[in-house]
Amino acid sequence: MSLLIKNGRVVTAVDDYKADVFVENDKITMIGEKLDVKADTVIDASNRLVIPGGIDPHTHLDMPFGGTNSCDDFLTGTRAAAFGGTTTIIDFAIQVKGNSTFEALDTWHKKAEGKAVIDYGFHMIITDMPEERLPEMTKLAGEGVTSYKMFMAYPGVLYVDDGVLFRAMRQAGEDGTVICMHAENGIVIDEIVKRARAEGKKEPKWHALTRPTRMEAEGVYRSIAIAEVANVPLYIVHLSSSDALEQVKLARARGIPVHAETCPQYLFLDHSYYEKPGFEGAKWVMTPALREKWNQEVLWKGLQFNHLQAVSTDHCPFCMKGQKDLGLDDFAKIPNGAPGIENRMSLIFNGGVAERKISLNRFVQLTSTNAAKMFGLFPRKGTIAVGSDADIVIFDPERTETIGINNPLMHHMNVDYSAWEGFKVKGYSEIVISRGQVLCDKGEFKGKPGRGQFLRRGLYSGFNL
Amino acid sequence: MSLLIKNGRVVTAVDDYKADVFVENDKITMIGEKLDVKADTVIDASNRLVIPGGIDPHTHLDMPFGGTNSCDDFLTGTRAAAFGGTTTIIDFAIQVKGNSTFEALDTWHKKAEGKAVIDYGFHMIITDMPEERLPEMTKLAGEGVTSYKMFMAYPGVLYVDDGVLFRAMRQAGEDGTVICMHAENGIVIDEIVKRARAEGKKEPKWHALTRPTRMEAEGVYRSIAIAEVANVPLYIVHLSSSDALEQVKLARARGIPVHAETCPQYLFLDHSYYEKPGFEGAKWVMTPALREKWNQEVLWKGLQFNHLQAVSTDHCPFCMKGQKDLGLDDFAKIPNGAPGIENRMSLIFNGGVAERKISLNRFVQLTSTNAAKMFGLFPRKGTIAVGSDADIVIFDPERTETIGINNPLMHHMNVDYSAWEGFKVKGYSEIVISRGQVLCDKGEFKGKPGRGQFLRRGLYSGFNL
Amino acid sequence: MSLLIKNGRVVTAVDDYKADVFVENDKITMIGEKLDVKADTVIDASNRLVIPGGIDPHTHLDMPFGGTNSCDDFLTGTRAAAFGGTTTIIDFAIQVKGNSTFEALDTWHKKAEGKAVIDYGFHMIITDMPEERLPEMTKLAGEGVTSYKMFMAYPGVLYVDDGVLFRAMRQAGEDGTVICMHAENGIVIDEIVKRARAEGKKEPKWHALTRPTRMEAEGVYRSIAIAEVANVPLYIVHLSSSDALEQVKLARARGIPVHAETCPQYLFLDHSYYEKPGFEGAKWVMTPALREKWNQEVLWKGLQFNHLQAVSTDHCPFCMKGQKDLGLDDFAKIPNGAPGIENRMSLIFNGGVAERKISLNRFVQLTSTNAAKMFGLFPRKGTIAVGSDADIVIFDPERTETIGINNPLMHHMNVDYSAWEGFKVKGYSEIVISRGQVLCDKGEFKGKPGRGQFLRRGLYSGFNL
Amino acid sequence: MSLLIKNGRVVTAVDDYKADVFVENDKITMIGEKLDVKADTVIDASNRLVIPGGIDPHTHLDMPFGGTNSCDDFLTGTRAAAFGGTTTIIDFAIQVKGNSTFEALDTWHKKAEGKAVIDYGFHMIITDMPEERLPEMTKLAGEGVTSYKMFMAYPGVLYVDDGVLFRAMRQAGEDGTVICMHAENGIVIDEIVKRARAEGKKEPKWHALTRPTRMEAEGVYRSIAIAEVANVPLYIVHLSSSDALEQVKLARARGIPVHAETCPQYLFLDHSYYEKPGFEGAKWVMTPALREKWNQEVLWKGLQFNHLQAVSTDHCPFCMKGQKDLGLDDFAKIPNGAPGIENRMSLIFNGGVAERKISLNRFVQLTSTNAAKMFGLFPRKGTIAVGSDADIVIFDPERTETIGINNPLMHHMNVDYSAWEGFKVKGYSEIVISRGQVLCDKGEFKGKPGRGQFLRRGLYSGFNL
Repeated sequence: MSLLIKNGRVVTAVDDYKADVFVENDKITMIGEKLDVKADTVIDASNRLVIPGGIDPHTHLDMPFGGTNSCDDFLTGTRAAAFGGTTTIIDFAIQVKGNSTFEALDTWHKKAEGKAVIDYGFHMIITDMPEERLPEMTKLAGEGVTSYKMFMAYPGVLYVDDGVLFRAMRQAGEDGTVICMHAENGIVIDEIVKRARAEGKKEPKWHALTRPTRMEAEGVYRSIAIAEVANVPLYIVHLSSSDALEQVKLARARGIPVHAETCPQYLFLDHSYYEKPGFEGAKWVMTPALREKWNQEVLWKGLQFNHLQAVSTDHCPFCMKGQKDLGLDDFAKIPNGAPGIENRMSLIFNGGVAERKISLNRFVQLTSTNAAKMFGLFPRKGTIAVGSDADIVIFDPERTETIGINNPLMHHMNVDYSAWEGFKVKGYSEIVISRGQVLCDKGEFKGKPGRGQFLRRGLYSGFNL
Repeated sequence: MSLLIKNGRVVTAVDDYKADVFVENDKITMIGEKLDVKADTVIDASNRLVIPGGIDPHTHLDMPFGGTNSCDDFLTGTRAAAFGGTTTIIDFAIQVKGNSTFEALDTWHKKAEGKAVIDYGFHMIITDMPEERLPEMTKLAGEGVTSYKMFMAYPGVLYVDDGVLFRAMRQAGEDGTVICMHAENGIVIDEIVKRARAEGKKEPKWHALTRPTRMEAEGVYRSIAIAEVANVPLYIVHLSSSDALEQVKLARARGIPVHAETCPQYLFLDHSYYEKPGFEGAKWVMTPALREKWNQEVLWKGLQFNHLQAVSTDHCPFCMKGQKDLGLDDFAKIPNGAPGIENRMSLIFNGGVAERKISLNRFVQLTSTNAAKMFGLFPRKGTIAVGSDADIVIFDPERTETIGINNPLMHHMNVDYSAWEGFKVKGYSEIVISRGQVLCDKGEFKGKPGRGQFLRRGLYSGFNL
Repeated sequence: MSLLIKNGRVVTAVDDYKADVFVENDKITMIGEKLDVKADTVIDASNRLVIPGGIDPHTHLDMPFGGTNSCDDFLTGTRAAAFGGTTTIIDFAIQVKGNSTFEALDTWHKKAEGKAVIDYGFHMIITDMPEERLPEMTKLAGEGVTSYKMFMAYPGVLYVDDGVLFRAMRQAGEDGTVICMHAENGIVIDEIVKRARAEGKKEPKWHALTRPTRMEAEGVYRSIAIAEVANVPLYIVHLSSSDALEQVKLARARGIPVHAETCPQYLFLDHSYYEKPGFEGAKWVMTPALREKWNQEVLWKGLQFNHLQAVSTDHCPFCMKGQKDLGLDDFAKIPNGAPGIENRMSLIFNGGVAERKISLNRFVQLTSTNAAKMFGLFPRKGTIAVGSDADIVIFDPERTETIGINNPLMHHMNVDYSAWEGFKVKGYSEIVISRGQVLCDKGEFKGKPGRGQFLRRGLYSGFNL
Repeated sequence: MSLLIKNGRVVTAVDDYKADVFVENDKITMIGEKLDVKADTVIDASNRLVIPGGIDPHTHLDMPFGGTNSCDDFLTGTRAAAFGGTTTIIDFAIQVKGNSTFEALDTWHKKAEGKAVIDYGFHMIITDMPEERLPEMTKLAGEGVTSYKMFMAYPGVLYVDDGVLFRAMRQAGEDGTVICMHAENGIVIDEIVKRARAEGKKEPKWHALTRPTRMEAEGVYRSIAIAEVANVPLYIVHLSSSDALEQVKLARARGIPVHAETCPQYLFLDHSYYEKPGFEGAKWVMTPALREKWNQEVLWKGLQFNHLQAVSTDHCPFCMKGQKDLGLDDFAKIPNGAPGIENRMSLIFNGGVAERKISLNRFVQLTSTNAAKMFGLFPRKGTIAVGSDADIVIFDPERTETIGINNPLMHHMNVDYSAWEGFKVKGYSEIVISRGQVLCDKGEFKGKPGRGQFLRRGLYSGFNL
């Protein structure tokens, strides 16, 4: 099986040139000017960008939370991802406290198998890590699970104390793997929440008002400090505020290997969304919460100057009906999370490239390459180069669409609202190719459930990102 | 004319893969697995890295200084560069105060023509920029001279005051070009020098002892502040100290487009070299001076974390006999500068990659790609990609050589000493190709004087570096 | 001659107690509970604060500027100062370029003699300092002129280059004296001004719009860096912006002896004053210019946390009629400066103490004690202690007055407008005593022209401020 | 009863003058030149400093720790303090987890009563603070216990989690009181300790090697962040390292009310003491541990520039025989702490004033006044002013003594070694007066056990320190 992409403008994290790209089976085997070669399929990419498929290193499909499950499973979620130009995700398996992390891995393998339409990896969420279980981490790395996430938030649920943090970090450092951190002081936040609720403050906006940015910055500083002592690279997930970013900058200025991602919601949305009438604010009840608008410019600067290395979605959708409304009377019962897996590439292209905040190359770095390097997927994923998987998006940089649940090109997620309703974006993932197969073609889905493969990832290779 | 490089490991600023590279005339036209194609020349690059030719954005060939001229001209200098794996340089034309910058450009064109063996561009050193001469800058940009250097040091010679600085910066910003800065407070340094000499302190080491790092930091902070107001991107040349780097970090943390290079001498050599007996310290009389050793680690961290974006040489050689010895009795009369154009790639590979301080990709970024992006040469130079110039080095990452004037593989510069005598380095530029032509082949020179071309550079494209 | 102040609440930079204060001749000789002593004059200070007389270390009386003179001379100016609770000023003598600083001192002695009603010292403004004139500085210190001011602003007028700066700083450091700095890059500002005027931007507000805070920060950073190399304590005058303060904080965090004052105008007034209709903005044409409002909170924090050590007035009044109106058609011709010598104590008490931003002790430090320590007047001035000059204010902390040219209690300055018209302030200097003599008594002036004495100041003693 | 101190040089936190000081009963009632007054006792203080008695805000007398008690009780400890020029201490009462803080207060009252020879207050150490117990804090404030200490170190013993921290901080903020913090991440440190011991690393030096400065900095940053959200002033105790101080500087630069003390051990001693042969290093097993020597200069700069506000001792002595030797085979069993209550004033005078690092006024601030202001003792304590307690030291600034257990003038503590053996110090507390009574007179003790009074302290008044 072969595929020839002709006449496109190939853009990688560093390069930008006109060429034809030839794919045999699932790999790119040749790139050249006017390639004189026969192919089973030929795509004319004139006036299009030919870019590496997006990698979303932070998704929560079919995830249990507060008595319900995020409403995209590995089929609906990965299909929506594909429509949005994302050809790889890294989702999270969650250890059940007291149980083996391998049980969790099994559980998540079962969730994905037969469903995923794009390739996927797993981070392991550690909720518990006694001394005697540490060898599991090394073994997990051998199985291609080379990154671990821990929570400083959600006491009683996912929260781990600094002892667990340190033990797992030290082990991860010795194994050459990397730690992902939800950096927010959940213990203090819970105290603030408790008082707010006691005072009858229960509308959705109180979710945000009880989570000060300083408590995010605290989590960032603390986890960096502990990681420094543990000698492990650190990756801060869903960084949302200037306060938090400041700590990342200071650490990187000192030469500490700290990385961070932000998400579109923190780049485009802000606290004012919680002021919408009635219960509508619940749509954006996520953690961290949306911040004051001025933070956005600081985060964009962070993307420009490499203080931030990636943009993920933290896709974790819950329907307004039947899920979000569990918290109709109490913000603390609203499932935390929002949908976004499908919209990342267009949002960042529009807000970044079209609005001249970042270069095209930087766009590719932030949406694909850096995640691949960070999480041991490079060079298999994250670039257009000879020998790499043919995960390619034929991207139309000029087409404008409006995001919304009624636009059949822009909303395939299994959720009853869009966090981005009405956003007009320039830049559309017209044809999406995964390992040489056309998955999406101008809005038509051509893939099969279960074709996506589990990715055994290599060790941390984010050195110098 | 065609060339096929087979079996190599291609490394660019981001990629790393095995492939054959095919060159037609001076361009790369195809990259692929086991290319089935005929070529006039075939090079077997098994066990070799195939990397973009080095770009040295800071050289001073045939440059007048203190009554003498730097002792490499465009023939000997570019030939030595080629032997060291550098296939592009950006040298400096110097405006004569009161005269047109175009006169300077003519002068430098004449210096280079018929001599240069690799491609070259010019930065324009501005020594004078009255209001009425500003349109020249725009015109120069049209001629491919899209970067300007100014000196805060050397009062009475190259120094310009803050008014000239600001006027030129504002114009450069409007033109989309970039300002290079020698950032040291020469006015204050001259006062310190004056007193030292009055006190009879005239040995070479006093060159260093009269140039405190704080005065470099001052130049950096000041030029950044003025550039911020003038709204122009800034590129600090030959940054040498932690004090100075601190200011670059702070500016980048604020989101100001500031870039900086350092040089091998500041990464490997230190103040103790001035303590060598007799006049030997004169070998390293350069500006900025060598610093205390602890600065080196900070600079390496700067390279790792992208606080610094490039490594140049500031190659400016003067022979010990007949040139340096002008200052035998007075450090202030020693011509400032040292040789290094030939040794950069091996030094940085050895100290960076072999000693695991930076990745292979970062090595390519620092020695080639970033300079190309900064100074309007990309994608023609600085990468291995379809459509780019075939400026390629077949690099042996395992071969170890000792730098010194008696090693015929490592010293082709026209100067009677090596600043790196006795340094053992791993990593050797075995075959060096410029626009498809093999220039150097295992120590043999195959190029012709004058084959190097003047590069009309594009506008600043260092956005997001 | 003796004076007894009974029943007051004595507040110094550190203490706060109820006691009687006994003065013999011009000194305080005893402090105690219910002193049983006879006195020529007895003042009942019940319900009043008994505080050290204010020290204003930055005034410009009878100063030539742009072809006119500031409109308060040493009589009207010091009398107004006294009414406002200030019993000591340090004014500025200005060296004529090329001439001896002693000539300047003579000139200013003549301006003050026979006029001043409170004690005064002089800083020497250096406009020129060739090597051979440096011994003058040492001699001036012997005469009690132990601080020197230099200007990085006003090219062609008061501006000195970095060489003069450094030479004078080095000498001052060796002499144990201190350098005051007007820290703004006047060279760059002049370029911005030139273009603005060329573009026809000539209204008063352009005075401010051509003086970016970054150029103040630049002056601060540069003067600190040079002072550090010269090894001299530095005192930044009239610091006006967060940008500039940031540099002071960073230097103090590094342990460099840098101090700074701000002025009431930067604490209470802001850029919007320039938007007043017509030419009214000229009232606040001063240098530095008023800044955006948000800077005020940062400056107040600076006063709280000792990032700033004093509040002066930079009193430099010009009448709207006949003086300010020289610039009716061109902001660049408006004499720079504004009146304020009379209002400092009430403004800072009201905005600081009454609004609970600073403590009473801090109020005394900022308005009196710190200036005395910085500039060699302590313990003669700046405190209420045995042996100190009886410069005392009986201050009513509850009385509210409205500042304005028609309030005979609040405006004795010889200028046809108030920069503070309509400001309501709590806190009034009811009785003002200088060296044991009651100068002002509830609005009545009891002093004699010329009774003020020139203060031979000691060396810098601001160590640990 | 009256006392007259004649001819001394009175030095307070701000003043410095020659005067006689008259004391009636326990208060200062008059200060003046050559006071003509009769007194029961007359002291000639010619050539002596007359300074406020020292306040040591951090002592641990008769404190249970690891199965033993610190070996100075309130008699031996306060007597030694008095000999050293300290006339007030603030010791720590320790809440038993689950029990009322009032029980702890009672226990400590009993420890002190009948024993203390100088006045004393108590901080309350909170080990537990459920919602329902919060009103106790307000009540404690009413009893004059207006500061609370919490531990981020010592898990399982004194450690409290961030929830307790926040609840107590919020309450303290509402009450106008202040939080003292032992800022070190004990949870992580325990993990490091566990591994070290498992690896057989048990010598005293491992106490230090398992406590990285970064974990102190982490505690400082975290407690500041939480205090900021809780809106309470914070006082970091025994700050020991540059890393930690950096966080205090950054917070104060942002305008957050954070204060910190350091101790003589961190200013004069360093990590090398742990390298002494055998078990001798145990003498300095304290927490935080002694740091690398270069930190000392940074801490001194912190004292000079008011980044640090006080010097306490953290006096917590254990004898080498019978106490320290509990950990002969395992550093983790060595009781933490060292003696020092007696040596603070001489050490700081010698290292600070005599070596010209701080001024005399600053010496008084650091050893007395600032603690009084911070902890609600001012103006009763901490100054020499009319109405204040006559806690006065007649200090000989020229006398030199050598600290050591065999010097009867310098070692009255009930402990079998000196942490300062052999230190030669200039500056001696010759006569020590507490509330008008001479307690120590040239080495002779004249006080009575139990004469010391419990001090009901006022609210936090450290505003502007």
